[in-house]
Amino acid sequence: MSIPYTFSRTAAGLKRSVMRDLMALAVSPDVISFAGGLPASDHLPLEQLRTCFDAVLSRDGARALQYGPPYVPLREWLAAYMQRRGVDCTVENIFITSGAQQGLEILARLFLDEGAPEVLEAITFTGIQQAAQGHGALVRTVPVDLKTGIDVEALETVLARSPRARLGVVIPDFHNPLGVSVPAAHRARIAELAARHRVPIVEDDPYSPLRHAGEAQRPIKAYDEAGAVIYLGSFSKMLAPAMRLGWMVAPAALVARLTVLRESIDLESSQFIQRVAVEFLTRGWLEPHLAQLNAANRERRDALFAALERELGGLVSWTRPEGGLFVWVTLPAGVDAAELFKAAVARQVAFIPGGAFAVEGGYANTMRLNYSNVTPANIAEGLRRLGAVLKERLAVTV
Amino acid sequence: MSIPYTFSRTAAGLKRSVMRDLMALAVSPDVISFAGGLPASDHLPLEQLRTCFDAVLSRDGARALQYGPPYVPLREWLAAYMQRRGVDCTVENIFITSGAQQGLEILARLFLDEGAPEVLEAITFTGIQQAAQGHGALVRTVPVDLKTGIDVEALETVLARSPRARLGVVIPDFHNPLGVSVPAAHRARIAELAARHRVPIVEDDPYSPLRHAGEAQRPIKAYDEAGAVIYLGSFSKMLAPAMRLGWMVAPAALVARLTVLRESIDLESSQFIQRVAVEFLTRGWLEPHLAQLNAANRERRDALFAALERELGGLVSWTRPEGGLFVWVTLPAGVDAAELFKAAVARQVAFIPGGAFAVEGGYANTMRLNYSNVTPANIAEGLRRLGAVLKERLAVTV
Repeated sequence: MSIPYTFSRTAAGLKRSVMRDLMALAVSPDVISFAGGLPASDHLPLEQLRTCFDAVLSRDGARALQYGPPYVPLREWLAAYMQRRGVDCTVENIFITSGAQQGLEILARLFLDEGAPEVLEAITFTGIQQAAQGHGALVRTVPVDLKTGIDVEALETVLARSPRARLGVVIPDFHNPLGVSVPAAHRARIAELAARHRVPIVEDDPYSPLRHAGEAQRPIKAYDEAGAVIYLGSFSKMLAPAMRLGWMVAPAALVARLTVLRESIDLESSQFIQRVAVEFLTRGWLEPHLAQLNAANRERRDALFAALERELGGLVSWTRPEGGLFVWVTLPAGVDAAELFKAAVARQVAFIPGGAFAVEGGYANTMRLNYSNVTPANIAEGLRRLGAVLKERLAVTV
Repeated sequence: MSIPYTFSRTAAGLKRSVMRDLMALAVSPDVISFAGGLPASDHLPLEQLRTCFDAVLSRDGARALQYGPPYVPLREWLAAYMQRRGVDCTVENIFITSGAQQGLEILARLFLDEGAPEVLEAITFTGIQQAAQGHGALVRTVPVDLKTGIDVEALETVLARSPRARLGVVIPDFHNPLGVSVPAAHRARIAELAARHRVPIVEDDPYSPLRHAGEAQRPIKAYDEAGAVIYLGSFSKMLAPAMRLGWMVAPAALVARLTVLRESIDLESSQFIQRVAVEFLTRGWLEPHLAQLNAANRERRDALFAALERELGGLVSWTRPEGGLFVWVTLPAGVDAAELFKAAVARQVAFIPGGAFAVEGGYANTMRLNYSNVTPANIAEGLRRLGAVLKERLAVTV
């Protein structure tokens, strides 16, 4: 029971993520689920984190459990890490977040008024869409390419036609849901377009540490000489989601303003978890952890490629990610992945229909498959089931 | 360096908290600081939390480090806890937050549009003011009494004159900054007024577990039969600030809506920390922890009362809290606490001038003293310094 409420205009219209509902359908232990976005549960650094929890409590005691300002050693480590990746930055440019989603939200809060234009990729992570929708953004979309990600020519056109755009968002590495990465030349172009059109472009990058093939790319932020690109990183995939920890690289004046805004939002990120992250990082444990994690991810990706070829070769096409968590599959024209989903769940296999990521609809014949949190044996069996479901559907259609 | 930005209207006007600036001045180890809002650092449950971190990792393994929905055993424990405190609720009414400030923010986000009226106490916690300001609320204030907190007669008048008010916020127990608590009869009245005027009233209650004298009061939510009161609790003061964990008790339909909104804000609170809290609570460690914490707080409060009497008796008056962290001091008329602050810091003692908490200004001759994180010996010495500073100021004035 409750009194009648009057909600804010933006909150009244906020839609439940279809993706979450679908994932909820796929939690039965008998279902082989390619629907999630989780890092490999069997490769989380459990024992190392246990050591770090203990070391931080022993060394820092009560200071680790109190309130406190953003932890300077973490900001220092991140500044050095981003420098190694080609980004010109200092500790003053590092803003600590409770994960990349909070970064998206706080930037939307900082830059968007209701009806303000925001530029998004036509296919993008639902959390990016929700942050835009939650602040009433008027979304302009840029087409994506299944080999090179955001179409930079189209980005230029959209920016030129949206002189009042407040913000743009791009996922450059191992795109969610597409799996593709933006080539270096395009990255330079994106930074240049952001500067020329004076539209801050958010580089949402939770995935780049998860590279398991090919050559590492410098972030878009590395090409940014004008302070027009805002970088978002996250420990959720490179360490563990339950850290609830991430960071932003932004002009120092913006960091100062965000620090004030953050006070009113949730005060701060956990002192304890920030210190645990520093403990893990300064012990030199990140690289070995990523090496074993990415070896496992690569094995799983290869298992998925092989199973797709074996079960669905000639029927469907798919992207060829060199890292991250996802592969994007295009089904035969006319097949509705949302319909297929129901038959698939009945056959104990799940995925996310690609339409969930399509900002302006369409893409009904696509799906996102996660491989990072499925064992190779389950990948093979899951694709057998999925192949059977699709072939039945095609037989009916034909 | 950065491109020129266009900020959102609400973010452009957000002011830095004066309080934070003052606290930053008071961090030198030689300064005896009554300025903070921290629980006693020497009474945080360090070893118990260490045991819980370890137990959760051993038992839950990777599940404790992954993404996951709000942890049902935590919601169940909290529902039972709130029932014991007289609140009619089930697990469906419990929404997990990353602390009470996030609760304030997410409710402001849900209910406020720019220019929407919101009812606040005339003197209140700066974070409550920032959440209102951050969403462009048109704030209406209700006077407070230094013995009984919010003036309920005035609340009725303000609600009657604000038919479009979207939200109200009250701190019922050990008010920040006043230290006072609202009597039971007034609590029932607040719940009744919220229902009658159909204005959701937020009960911000991080402090009630910190009672060290007198009789526990039922929360305002316990008197709410209409679903008009939204309760906010926090583990920051009862366990540790670095947990970044709190909860809300609200009608189930509101919890469902907030769950969707939360996805776009920061996804979720840490699975790990939620499980650690349950471990601590179900081991029965909360009551003994609070007993020793409150014994320490009481000793410190009594030391502060004695020092105020000794150093400033007859010159100033102060509130008589039965718990929480703060005492509110009224200086002689004409003394400006902000001016006094500068002289005090020069003399190595700090406090927060009360004007920082005054929504519509005024209260220049008041200050907030924290006693929970100052040892009795430092309380005595700090008040000696403060007494000397005030007497010098009065000698100059006279």
